[in-house]
Amino acid sequence: MRGRRPADSSVIQYEVMLSKDANSAGNVHGGVVVKHIFTTAGVVASRHSRGNAVTVSIDALDFYNPIFADNLLILKSTVNMVGRTSMEIGLRAEAEDISSGKLNHVTSAYLTFVALDSDGRPREVPPLVLKTKEEKRRERDALRRRSAKLAQKARKE
Amino acid sequence: MRGRRPADSSVIQYEVMLSKDANSAGNVHGGVVVKHIFTTAGVVASRHSRGNAVTVSIDALDFYNPIFADNLLILKSTVNMVGRTSMEIGLRAEAEDISSGKLNHVTSAYLTFVALDSDGRPREVPPLVLKTKEEKRRERDALRRRSAKLAQKARKE
Amino acid sequence: MRGRRPADSSVIQYEVMLSKDANSAGNVHGGVVVKHIFTTAGVVASRHSRGNAVTVSIDALDFYNPIFADNLLILKSTVNMVGRTSMEIGLRAEAEDISSGKLNHVTSAYLTFVALDSDGRPREVPPLVLKTKEEKRRERDALRRRSAKLAQKARKE
Amino acid sequence: MRGRRPADSSVIQYEVMLSKDANSAGNVHGGVVVKHIFTTAGVVASRHSRGNAVTVSIDALDFYNPIFADNLLILKSTVNMVGRTSMEIGLRAEAEDISSGKLNHVTSAYLTFVALDSDGRPREVPPLVLKTKEEKRRERDALRRRSAKLAQKARKE
Amino acid sequence: MRGRRPADSSVIQYEVMLSKDANSAGNVHGGVVVKHIFTTAGVVASRHSRGNAVTVSIDALDFYNPIFADNLLILKSTVNMVGRTSMEIGLRAEAEDISSGKLNHVTSAYLTFVALDSDGRPREVPPLVLKTKEEKRRERDALRRRSAKLAQKARKE
Amino acid sequence: MRGRRPADSSVIQYEVMLSKDANSAGNVHGGVVVKHIFTTAGVVASRHSRGNAVTVSIDALDFYNPIFADNLLILKSTVNMVGRTSMEIGLRAEAEDISSGKLNHVTSAYLTFVALDSDGRPREVPPLVLKTKEEKRRERDALRRRSAKLAQKARKE
Repeated sequence: MRGRRPADSSVIQYEVMLSKDANSAGNVHGGVVVKHIFTTAGVVASRHSRGNAVTVSIDALDFYNPIFADNLLILKSTVNMVGRTSMEIGLRAEAEDISSGKLNHVTSAYLTFVALDSDGRPREVPPLVLKTKEEKRRERDALRRRSAKLAQKARKE
Repeated sequence: MRGRRPADSSVIQYEVMLSKDANSAGNVHGGVVVKHIFTTAGVVASRHSRGNAVTVSIDALDFYNPIFADNLLILKSTVNMVGRTSMEIGLRAEAEDISSGKLNHVTSAYLTFVALDSDGRPREVPPLVLKTKEEKRRERDALRRRSAKLAQKARKE
Repeated sequence: MRGRRPADSSVIQYEVMLSKDANSAGNVHGGVVVKHIFTTAGVVASRHSRGNAVTVSIDALDFYNPIFADNLLILKSTVNMVGRTSMEIGLRAEAEDISSGKLNHVTSAYLTFVALDSDGRPREVPPLVLKTKEEKRRERDALRRRSAKLAQKARKE
Repeated sequence: MRGRRPADSSVIQYEVMLSKDANSAGNVHGGVVVKHIFTTAGVVASRHSRGNAVTVSIDALDFYNPIFADNLLILKSTVNMVGRTSMEIGLRAEAEDISSGKLNHVTSAYLTFVALDSDGRPREVPPLVLKTKEEKRRERDALRRRSAKLAQKARKE
Repeated sequence: MRGRRPADSSVIQYEVMLSKDANSAGNVHGGVVVKHIFTTAGVVASRHSRGNAVTVSIDALDFYNPIFADNLLILKSTVNMVGRTSMEIGLRAEAEDISSGKLNHVTSAYLTFVALDSDGRPREVPPLVLKTKEEKRRERDALRRRSAKLAQKARKE
Repeated sequence: MRGRRPADSSVIQYEVMLSKDANSAGNVHGGVVVKHIFTTAGVVASRHSRGNAVTVSIDALDFYNPIFADNLLILKSTVNMVGRTSMEIGLRAEAEDISSGKLNHVTSAYLTFVALDSDGRPREVPPLVLKTKEEKRRERDALRRRSAKLAQKARKE
């Protein structure tokens, strides 16, 4: 299978937050933001693996800043690391106040997807061809997160 | 402010998973499950704090088992611990195969909410009155999670 | 087929009413409440009969009190009576003003469902095992409603 | 206030039933049909009363025939009778199999609406100007339903 | 195949515009109006051709007047002309201010649909039986639009 | 007002087409595609003009190729030309078959938006700073479309 660059599947999505996405004080529900996070990361996972992929885990999320109705939710997402059948997808969510252009960091997410074949069994994904320093740093960080998770699981057992 | 028992705000919600919630292989999208997790935990936070509350963080989620279209998603959620203006809400999500009644553990979640007043400022929440051993164990575990998080943040800075 | 208790399938659902569910004066649309009534009663019918079930009738509904955006809609639903392939599901809908905890009775509903097999033909449902006085009163009332309905039909023919 | 004819506010709506409106056997959920019933009758009530109107009751519904995904749901709705601030709206729901044009009667509904002013208080509605025999029969039947309902309420008290 | 009159498939649909369909200034999103245009014209195309039909083109749309939340969107749609497997559907969208009854012309649309069989191949549609002057003028105008479009395509090639 | 480059507001959006977006043969409804076209072009108009903007017209659309459930809808959109208060937004919609990566051109659209202030009156938009040949060709084509439209209107009057 031919390798693919992170840029071959990365996306930047823009979603206008509507009043129906918010409570009566204007705060967009966390669940709406997280729904978009899963959808956007899922697009990246499908594009890299050229097929169906399902989320198997998501790391802890901190909401650093609120996002309000009429703001633009900007979701930047890219593949950080791939295993044989799994992928770690990173995502940064920002809120843009449209009139000022001011950006606030809403949250960052790391999701792990597994690619599935038509019978629902894990299938191999293309290797990730990394060239830039930034791409390599992302993979290193992802590997560190995976090790930490495995260590934590081992401690629990 | 009078204290409240966890049972005063805990809920068990049932959601029928529809084909529109799933991909063409029948797997319900992770984003659909997580949307229901935020909504259900939000109900518990609003009921305990008698007002508006927003999510400030959610711990890591592992999806242990898939959930399929036509399954029943069961969400059991309760307040584990409260601070002055914040609450940790625990949630267990299970998939029930309706015809067999067989249950699968889909995921467990810990979400932190902050109660807000009408100007969007944090407001005090009622203390949590714990009586059973199980309730006290949950609070202890929540405190441990909070300490671990604070320690991790300190390490980063 | 082994009998089942009403408590084995009864549910209490909580739904936050959003501004998108209401007209511009804040009144939640009757159609939104009724949609939740059908969905919740359908969960109970599916759980008791362990499979697909469709609504064949609903008794008259009176809306005693309005429900507003930001209220919590509470739906309490249980099987009252079963026939060979049919079930009467009772449901009480209340509106909770979250800040005061004040409850208003919105409406009560009695729905009849028929369980269907995979070919769309009626299939048998488990008998209902009644123990408490309250459970027996509910069955008696449901039988009376069924007799009244049959008498009314007979008069029309 | 000038009177209005039933034809001035009556509607015939067509809704294509989609697979997302149906269970996996293709049966459209009762709740979907009832949602459309409330919405359509609400359009008639708003058109006759030229403003906001809310449902206060709906008579018993029997589902005579199922409706399936890909069918056309046809909703014919008209004002039958008006009081000072209330209106009885009648509605007939049919399922059309698009390829054969065959129609099935799904259900019929009688809903009572009250017109509200901008402060949420009942407001007067235009009188109903009836000319045809059919229109007068509908009003007579609506009056009979109202009397029966009042008698039933009196018996309960 | 027996011919059908335009009136056999024409519709007048009413949709209440909700706050969730509008921006925070109350203007209903153009995309919401256009979604209803496609759905309504699709009902007409399915009714005339008794089956599945897909949009292949839509002429330029000008939005003459805005439509606001709480307005009624009225969509009048009819078949203007049919080819062997295609149909031109005309549609006029109006906004009704419910309290005054005042109507504004929002936009007019001409959409071309092709009828498809169950394998997704074009299938023949019933001829259009035109009787009134108005019906014949509509067909003439539709033919003129088709010629203009073909001429424009020829110029491009 | 400082000018802005087309790249400052252009977007590439990805939307997974779901079975609920399609008819039972798998063809995504034209109305779903057009809804995404309006939403995406609206994001570009809001970003360039830093505020609220509404669609005043859309040129004719031809659907060159169908798009199916499970395909990725890719929407590439950019500002082509600005007037004092108006903007022409161009958009190209493609369908990607995820497993093969094969792209089909679905349709191209030109939409005109007007920027509005908080009172709903047209407001000035930043000038467009064009540098590349491609950007200048796009503006030229947009001007030609505007002239053709004005000429056509003049002929009608």
